[in-house]
Amino acid sequence: MATQDLQQALVEEIRDLYSAEKQITKALPKLIKQAEDEELKNALNEHLEVTKNQVERLEQVFSELGMKPRAKSCEAMKGIVSEGEDLAEKDAEPAVKDAMLIAAAQKVEHYEIGSYGTACAWAETLGLDSISELLQETLEEERQADKELSKIAKRINKAALNGSAMAA
Amino acid sequence: MATQDLQQALVEEIRDLYSAEKQITKALPKLIKQAEDEELKNALNEHLEVTKNQVERLEQVFSELGMKPRAKSCEAMKGIVSEGEDLAEKDAEPAVKDAMLIAAAQKVEHYEIGSYGTACAWAETLGLDSISELLQETLEEERQADKELSKIAKRINKAALNGSAMAA
Repeated sequence: MATQDLQQALVEEIRDLYSAEKQITKALPKLIKQAEDEELKNALNEHLEVTKNQVERLEQVFSELGMKPRAKSCEAMKGIVSEGEDLAEKDAEPAVKDAMLIAAAQKVEHYEIGSYGTACAWAETLGLDSISELLQETLEEERQADKELSKIAKRINKAALNGSAMAA
Repeated sequence: MATQDLQQALVEEIRDLYSAEKQITKALPKLIKQAEDEELKNALNEHLEVTKNQVERLEQVFSELGMKPRAKSCEAMKGIVSEGEDLAEKDAEPAVKDAMLIAAAQKVEHYEIGSYGTACAWAETLGLDSISELLQETLEEERQADKELSKIAKRINKAALNGSAMAA
């Protein structure tokens, strides 16, 4: 087995992210279907389009590295997605369900913020400037998506509280 | 099956975090053993102590909710930990290995930042102030740990680059 250098570590991270993004494009439509709130539905729909673009951006990264796009199964995202699917099947007040869907989506965002943060720092260290810029663009989009979900959550959580109080 | 309200959603999230933290206390010693850099070893060791305290804080949350502590297997953390263990077995330059260990640790931190962020917001909405404060304390510790790892990473990534260049 060859001793791994920083560029190989970056490639592994990109493959992990490529798997993660592909899992997200499959999982998001199920979450969107379950969402009740219109603003939340729209935000998740918009993020689905952004995610598809992020997949293409990773394909561009592979191309700049002179490689064919190849995913390495991201076990972490598998776990996050399977928990999200479990909760989508739960019987809950609509606003409570929406609050749980936001929680699941924010776990996805945070996993990505961590991983893109690492990949970005490594690309920068390696002097791969155009790759680092591509990854930075996605990192900013993930941070933005997380902030927007937090904003929507404030309103939904209050509705979830009122719904719970009414149901009690 | 009972219709879930916001407090039940919070309890589920706390159980998920309780499982996550317990998994981390088991996984961190393996990562520490693999780390080469002294500052990194110390930071991870310190975080292990902080994590044990966070487990106790969650036990206090259960107690304030009038419940016995009970974990619900956190599949996401299982995935993150298993990826971290895989990389710990990889043959890499010491500084590259350290860079990869930091990446794994930061994925853990980010998962927790996402989950504690949600739990904290829900507790606050429910007017469970003392619980919200306990969760906020941990959230701040996780953010701090993530920042410190990013700081250490800057130095280690440069060393990883030089190590890779020497090995090339």
